[in-house]
Parts: sequence; structure tokens; C-alpha cells
Amino acid sequence: MLCGQPVVLQIPEGDNRQRKVCTGCDHIHYENPKNVVGCLLEWRGKVLLCKRAIEPQLGYWTLPAGFMENEESTLEGAAREAYEEATAQCDDLRLFAVYNLPRISQVYLMFYGRLRDGFAEANEETLEVGLFDESEIPWDELAFPVVTETLTRFYEMRDQRDRRVYSADILSKPGAAMDVVRHPD
Amino acid sequence: MLCGQPVVLQIPEGDNRQRKVCTGCDHIHYENPKNVVGCLLEWRGKVLLCKRAIEPQLGYWTLPAGFMENEESTLEGAAREAYEEATAQCDDLRLFAVYNLPRISQVYLMFYGRLRDGFAEANEETLEVGLFDESEIPWDELAFPVVTETLTRFYEMRDQRDRRVYSADILSKPGAAMDVVRHPD
Ligand SMILES: [Zn+2]
Ligand SMILES: [Zn+2]
Repeated sequence: MLCGQPVVLQIPEGDNRQRKVCTGCDHIHYENPKNVVGCLLEWRGKVLLCKRAIEPQLGYWTLPAGFMENEESTLEGAAREAYEEATAQCDDLRLFAVYNLPRISQVYLMFYGRLRDGFAEANEETLEVGLFDESEIPWDELAFPVVTETLTRFYEMRDQRDRRVYSADILSKPGAAMDVVRHPD
Repeated sequence: MLCGQPVVLQIPEGDNRQRKVCTGCDHIHYENPKNVVGCLLEWRGKVLLCKRAIEPQLGYWTLPAGFMENEESTLEGAAREAYEEATAQCDDLRLFAVYNLPRISQVYLMFYGRLRDGFAEANEETLEVGLFDESEIPWDELAFPVVTETLTRFYEMRDQRDRRVYSADILSKPGAAMDVVRHPD
């Protein structure tokens, strides 16, 4: 797939935009948006958050989430991330929201579910885990705007339990003012 | 990003699976699932389908859909594909379904909307466009299982108009018996 020759930018035949094309083997190296899969896990009214042990946003709190891998489903990926980032297992995961982050060419697919046995613990990717009531959420120490938006929606819609899937474009950078365009429900 | 040196498979530090790593510059070439964005467009009770002018499944009917590009949202990508494949414009697009295709490491994000002015026409990617009543859908000539599942759900749920977002794992290959695991609504 990669033969080791230099790569040039050109528009392949039948295409309408520039791609990276190998000068040795004509392999076209497409670059497409990446999916991030994650979850909001609840246990007795509290939500699981993880304090990041890695950059970016080291030391800030996040929902378990990470890049989707090949040959898994979005749901499998969300469950895998819960385990990798918080040693957590989850039940009854369902899709909660789809967020577009066009600025960084990512799509977040966030699931909602129950934290099995209320158990989670820190590991290589996480300095600390915590279960938070709504009044305890560290809003000023959340790692990413998409985490803030997911939690905000969750608490706004908590009493409705309508299994709706939310969607929004998240345009703000971490640390900057929130800039979110919600799609009609 | 690609310096032209050979690539080897190895597990990078802090990772837990093999990646393609450049022996020249240590660039890690991650491979992740790709998103396909598309839409089901309705006009006066009929649905827009396109007869494919390109492989795979040349000559079979499909909903407008294609790979999501960098720096666009899923919704923008779905609208772009409608234009690229059927010269069609759309109104009131909203997310209709998220389908996992782990066999081929793809995620489909399918939108529902109205076909503006009922206008569509064939182009480089499409041999023929058509507006079909439910009784006219060419079920045996649909290009992909994900198209069959999207149309099936659409007609099953048509009267409910509940703006639910559906989700399923699509495991079958084109032309084979349908193998679909629907997630709970
Ligand atoms: Zn090459
Ligand atoms: Zn290199």
C-alpha cells in the first residue's frame, strides 16, 4: 500500500479535489474525518468522569472517548474506550448524540449507558476517576467543548428519557467560549 | 507527513495495537473507519434513487451517498453527495440512521430530507435518476444492504414521523442474504 516513493498532491481522474498520490505506485492516500466514540455512564444518578493523564488537556476532566478502530462498531468502540480509560464496563449503551467538529475533521458518536456495579478506576490514560452529581460537575475543568455540550444536553433532557439522538456542530476550541450550533431535535 | 521511507508494522509506545510506522521519520500512519454520508430525499411521497455509473455495483440503484470529506459536517457531506450524484438539492435534512459496517470498517450516517423542487438528473456518477413510490422500489436491484435497510426502515416507520434516529449493524455483503442486527429503538 505504501511503496516508499515520494507523494505529490494532485486531483485523481474522476475526482474533484486534491489528494496525496504516490509517484511510485499511484496509490491514492485519502484523508477523511475520524470518528471519536465515547460514553456518558450513569450510576445511581452520578456520571463517570476521567481526569486525563495524557495531552492534550492533561489534568482536565472528560467523558471516556477515543478514536474508533477498524472492524468494530461505534457501540463496541464506546465500550472499549470506557474500559481503556476508566477500567469501566457498561450496560444498555445506546446512541445519545452525534457531534460534528469540522474544524478538526472529527465526528463524535456519544453513547449513554449504565456503569456496571458502579466500578471504575484510574489507569495509564487516566489520573483519577470520579462519579459526579449534577451539582458537582467541574464545568470549568472540562477537557473539551464536546464534553461540555454532552453533559449540558444530558442534564437539560434528563427528565424526558425520550431516547432522542441529539446532533450539533461544535465550532469552539478547548478553553474558548462555547460555539455550538444545535440541529433541530 | 510522508517522507518516502519504508513503513513497518509495530506497536507504538503507549498504544496497544500494531500500526504502520515510517522507518524514516517515525510518523505513525493510523487507519480508522471511514464515514459514508448520504440521504433519503422525498418529493410528493416518492423517494429519489440513483442508478450507479461506477463500480462497485454499477447499474444497481442506490441512495445518494459517499465518503465524508475533511472539514465538513455530516449534514454538509450528505447534501454534497446529493448534488454530486443526482444534481439534487435538499431541504430540512435531519439525521435518520447510523449504521455500523464493521466488516468493511465503515459507518453510514443517513439523513432524511425533502428533494427541492422535485429536481434531479443523471451525471458522471449516475446513469439514471428516478422518483419511486413504495410499490415501485426495485428491491432486487438495490446496490447495497445498507440501502435496503434504510428504505425498509423508512417505510416501516413512515407513519410515525417521530424523528427517531435508527441504528443497526449491517453484516451482509451486497447480493447476499440480509444480515442486520438492529439496535433497540
Ligand atoms: Zn507507492
Ligand atoms: Zn517518514
